[in-house]
Amino acid sequence: MANDGEIAVSNKQVILKDYVSGFPKETDMQVTTGTIKLKVPEGSTGVLVKNLYLSCDPYLIILMKKAQTSRYFISLTPGSSITGLGVAKVLDSGHSEFKKGDLVWGTTGWEEYSLIKTPDSLFKIHHTDVPLSYYTGILGMPGLTAYAGFYEICTPKKGEYVFISAASGAVGQLVGQFAKLMGCYVVGSAGTKEKVDLLKNKFGFDEAFNYKEEHDLDAALKRYFPEGIDIYFENVGGKMLDAVLLNMRLHGRIAVCGMISQYNLDQPEGVTNLLNIVYKCVRIEGFRVFDYYPKYSKFLDFILPHIREGEIKYVEDIAEGLESGPAALVGLFRGQNVGKQVVVVAKE
Amino acid sequence: MANDGEIAVSNKQVILKDYVSGFPKETDMQVTTGTIKLKVPEGSTGVLVKNLYLSCDPYLIILMKKAQTSRYFISLTPGSSITGLGVAKVLDSGHSEFKKGDLVWGTTGWEEYSLIKTPDSLFKIHHTDVPLSYYTGILGMPGLTAYAGFYEICTPKKGEYVFISAASGAVGQLVGQFAKLMGCYVVGSAGTKEKVDLLKNKFGFDEAFNYKEEHDLDAALKRYFPEGIDIYFENVGGKMLDAVLLNMRLHGRIAVCGMISQYNLDQPEGVTNLLNIVYKCVRIEGFRVFDYYPKYSKFLDFILPHIREGEIKYVEDIAEGLESGPAALVGLFRGQNVGKQVVVVAKE
Repeated sequence: MANDGEIAVSNKQVILKDYVSGFPKETDMQVTTGTIKLKVPEGSTGVLVKNLYLSCDPYLIILMKKAQTSRYFISLTPGSSITGLGVAKVLDSGHSEFKKGDLVWGTTGWEEYSLIKTPDSLFKIHHTDVPLSYYTGILGMPGLTAYAGFYEICTPKKGEYVFISAASGAVGQLVGQFAKLMGCYVVGSAGTKEKVDLLKNKFGFDEAFNYKEEHDLDAALKRYFPEGIDIYFENVGGKMLDAVLLNMRLHGRIAVCGMISQYNLDQPEGVTNLLNIVYKCVRIEGFRVFDYYPKYSKFLDFILPHIREGEIKYVEDIAEGLESGPAALVGLFRGQNVGKQVVVVAKE
Repeated sequence: MANDGEIAVSNKQVILKDYVSGFPKETDMQVTTGTIKLKVPEGSTGVLVKNLYLSCDPYLIILMKKAQTSRYFISLTPGSSITGLGVAKVLDSGHSEFKKGDLVWGTTGWEEYSLIKTPDSLFKIHHTDVPLSYYTGILGMPGLTAYAGFYEICTPKKGEYVFISAASGAVGQLVGQFAKLMGCYVVGSAGTKEKVDLLKNKFGFDEAFNYKEEHDLDAALKRYFPEGIDIYFENVGGKMLDAVLLNMRLHGRIAVCGMISQYNLDQPEGVTNLLNIVYKCVRIEGFRVFDYYPKYSKFLDFILPHIREGEIKYVEDIAEGLESGPAALVGLFRGQNVGKQVVVVAKE
């Protein structure tokens, strides 16, 4: 007999044990099993979903630390399951916009089933001729991040010199391909030979280098950008930013998507070359993708044909099973993932 | 008998002795006397001017150092007179747009008389009901800098929280008054009690503080900006920028006009709080006033009525005589000037 939702079922969860301090460890999280009824409570406008794919994103680590900037971030709650972005299937709905069987992406829990009490920020998935997992990446938040960050913040022009750090990651790989579509010269940095090969051979970057093999980042950038850099898509911060500043061109732009090298340091690295902002009229701009959610459907119209025609490549790193979540998330900060890091909870 | 220009006259000059290294000293410059004919050479399209007021600006020190970023700056030449902005009177002209007796402002030499070979960047002075020296400041490059930096780069809105460093200087005093005109809350920092009093009592800032008396700049900013800072007009860099970053609000803007605390350091201070760019979507933007020269006449239309009505105050620090130039310029970097530093070469 099918479960009609009145009987509680077991629900595996990834719990945040305590606030993370310093570098995140797998033991900051714990896989436990609770129970859940597969039905939205009476009178609730929430939805009850079965989670399929979970997204490992660097920003999660900010929420796993005790908030220092509480006005802007609401930290996760120790003892509760981690909350992040994912793809899910609606099993029951108290909300007029969602019905049983709908596929959605948006904020959900790191668990098998989630009751999403305020589903207003969920997006319904209408296109299923592409892998569902793509909605954690190229068709989801990281895709929109790359799109908004590159086209809106970087204000690119044909022929400009573009540098991308952490370039094989979920966002970087897309920014590089957008820049190539626009006719820019594109160089990426990454942390392994395998990733550098991906950048050059799969994603079509003009050049790529392994930053771990460069003891002088300034010299490396001068080698690849003898004319300087017009656009830097910043994912790492610290020493790389300092070297980039030395190589920016007049009226250069730096879109600050993230600074993954800095989140886990007790004391962030000092950046010493900011005078170049004055000398070269550089614009450095942080942004958050949430401000661009109203452009999501325009973004889909842009990106879907490119995916279907094979003009934009996309690489995922799939970890199987909720149990693999903590290692996959921690691995992001060691650069262990090759491409977008996804955790599969269930295939359907 | 009047000098018809054929007879060379003596010409006092301030010469750059050698490239400045580290903090500038008066002895980096030398006052000498050459000779000059008060006539434009046959066939030249230059103008021969008598210099009246010279402008002491922080950017000059960048040009007095050996260029490290030669693509963007052309250093001054040791052994030649210093070149900067000033107000002058045309004595002879080979250029169709200028005639004897015209008053002009623009790039000229630190000397009594200058032959300006390419006068294309000179502006003719049409309004002489205001002091001529104002064209080195509120009606010249610093005025346009404040105007472009505040209205174009800071994109201010009524009621926003505005902080200005080096706030009693040529640019800062104007930015603060523009921000008050717009209905912002405005706080400035300066380095003496006298300047702090000026900010509060003459320029109408809501609050002001002496940064030298604050051992914890972050705490000082939190005191004056419990809700955080929307707009920071950056004139100093280093520790102040680092403290400001901690206090920026979501979507805050930092217009980088200069970083006077950093130009003379062998190793600029490391700025460690750049993660706030990510957390709060901050935009930091350098700019150069030259890009806004086409808006100069629009700026004059805006500022002149405010000056005539007394709605905008302006304070100058006048040094008498070309001989006082080196001390006045070096004094900028010690904060010795109160208001815009001008050197009078001749009154007419």
